Amino acid sequence: MIDLTLIGIGTGNPDHVTFQGAQAIRSADLILIPRKGENKADLAGLREQIIAQVADTPPQIAYFDIPKRRADDGYLRGVDEWHDAIALRWQEAIAAHPKARHVALLIWGDPSLYDSSLRIAARLTPQPETRVIPGITALQALTAAHAIPINELGAPYIVTTGRRIRDEGWPETAENVAVMLDGECSFQNLNMEELDIWWGAYVGMKEEILIKGPLAEVAQQILDRRAHARADHGWIMDIYLLKKRII
Amino acid sequence: MIDLTLIGIGTGNPDHVTFQGAQAIRSADLILIPRKGENKADLAGLREQIIAQVADTPPQIAYFDIPKRRADDGYLRGVDEWHDAIALRWQEAIAAHPKARHVALLIWGDPSLYDSSLRIAARLTPQPETRVIPGITALQALTAAHAIPINELGAPYIVTTGRRIRDEGWPETAENVAVMLDGECSFQNLNMEELDIWWGAYVGMKEEILIKGPLAEVAQQILDRRAHARADHGWIMDIYLLKKRII
Repeated sequence: MIDLTLIGIGTGNPDHVTFQGAQAIRSADLILIPRKGENKADLAGLREQIIAQVADTPPQIAYFDIPKRRADDGYLRGVDEWHDAIALRWQEAIAAHPKARHVALLIWGDPSLYDSSLRIAARLTPQPETRVIPGITALQALTAAHAIPINELGAPYIVTTGRRIRDEGWPETAENVAVMLDGECSFQNLNMEELDIWWGAYVGMKEEILIKGPLAEVAQQILDRRAHARADHGWIMDIYLLKKRII
Repeated sequence: MIDLTLIGIGTGNPDHVTFQGAQAIRSADLILIPRKGENKADLAGLREQIIAQVADTPPQIAYFDIPKRRADDGYLRGVDEWHDAIALRWQEAIAAHPKARHVALLIWGDPSLYDSSLRIAARLTPQPETRVIPGITALQALTAAHAIPINELGAPYIVTTGRRIRDEGWPETAENVAVMLDGECSFQNLNMEELDIWWGAYVGMKEEILIKGPLAEVAQQILDRRAHARADHGWIMDIYLLKKRII
């Protein structure tokens, strides 16, 4: 019987790791690391760096390949099958190390936020006891980099995806909206005149790019910088916060 | 000219501190610690413990008293004046240490989330350069403790306050709603039959209490446990996530 620990490691800055996360890495006797598939970023390298940074005697590492996701039009289509396929890879990697009891994965950001690891873990048989170590999210890396609060005083905020913004527009009654997983700058579909944006790419990393201002004024600048950075690095992760201007 | 660093320290578990946060504590030459006013919890003691844990040569500490907030009915009334008053205390504490250049505060959770420190910092004159170090939020401590994602696959979520839930009810079109700053279990005002709750008090701390289930079934249990725990400890911090049941 094994237990599984999902360790949030933050967003690319190895110093985002918490003491609790470091302790969980040291306590693991097997760490699963995905070899490819994540935005072409060298995230396997980042994970190895974090492990080396916190553990004098690194735990055993098992690499696994992330299967390709069907490149369908619908966002949700194929995701279930994809999670099934990843769960099989985890299962195989664990089975190849029969002595391992404490298995861990290092999760980009935090395992609770737009992340699949809990859903994949739920597919394992027998079901391991699963524990989550929280980590710094991209949302927090963004607001920290801009030194802004995410909410107005005592007011709510919404976190959503680029796809929802593209398909459904501005969430009714919302004032502050954070947008994640937006591969196509969906803010262009909104009424840009009434919004301010705080945008960031590679937030928390040394490649960090930050742009803020009235959306109508800075939208083109964001599109250009995003396209260039993506071409330069071969991948991009970006995120933004929109606030409705009080007129 | 000073600079000011707002360091997110997580929610009461000293191991929530990140390596970046620890480094920022070591780099400070003056740390401001509030002496009272925060829920009667011994949070000054927690902050001292964190500093001792990460810094062999602790930076100088300046304690300040948090002024009383006017106990008005309206949530926002008086908050502005209160922030003015706290900013004055910060200013005095900094002025009393004229050699300090790198001033820091240890912020419960994360400075971006329902926290006033950025708004207070903006009141200081001359305006210091302000930097934010992200920390683990109560929201993440809650979802980690329950080992659940905060969002459904590709779906949005809302973060709001107990007051909003009490005054405005369930946010229209929402499926997942996280509620913070709720001193009066405002979930009682909702249609409890259609909701599931994941509730936690003192999340991340050794006193942690977790209750989950269909809201209509566990609401009374939460009310009772909350009242007892509050009486026992003299203070309580709790938070919860509500999900609309798909029928």
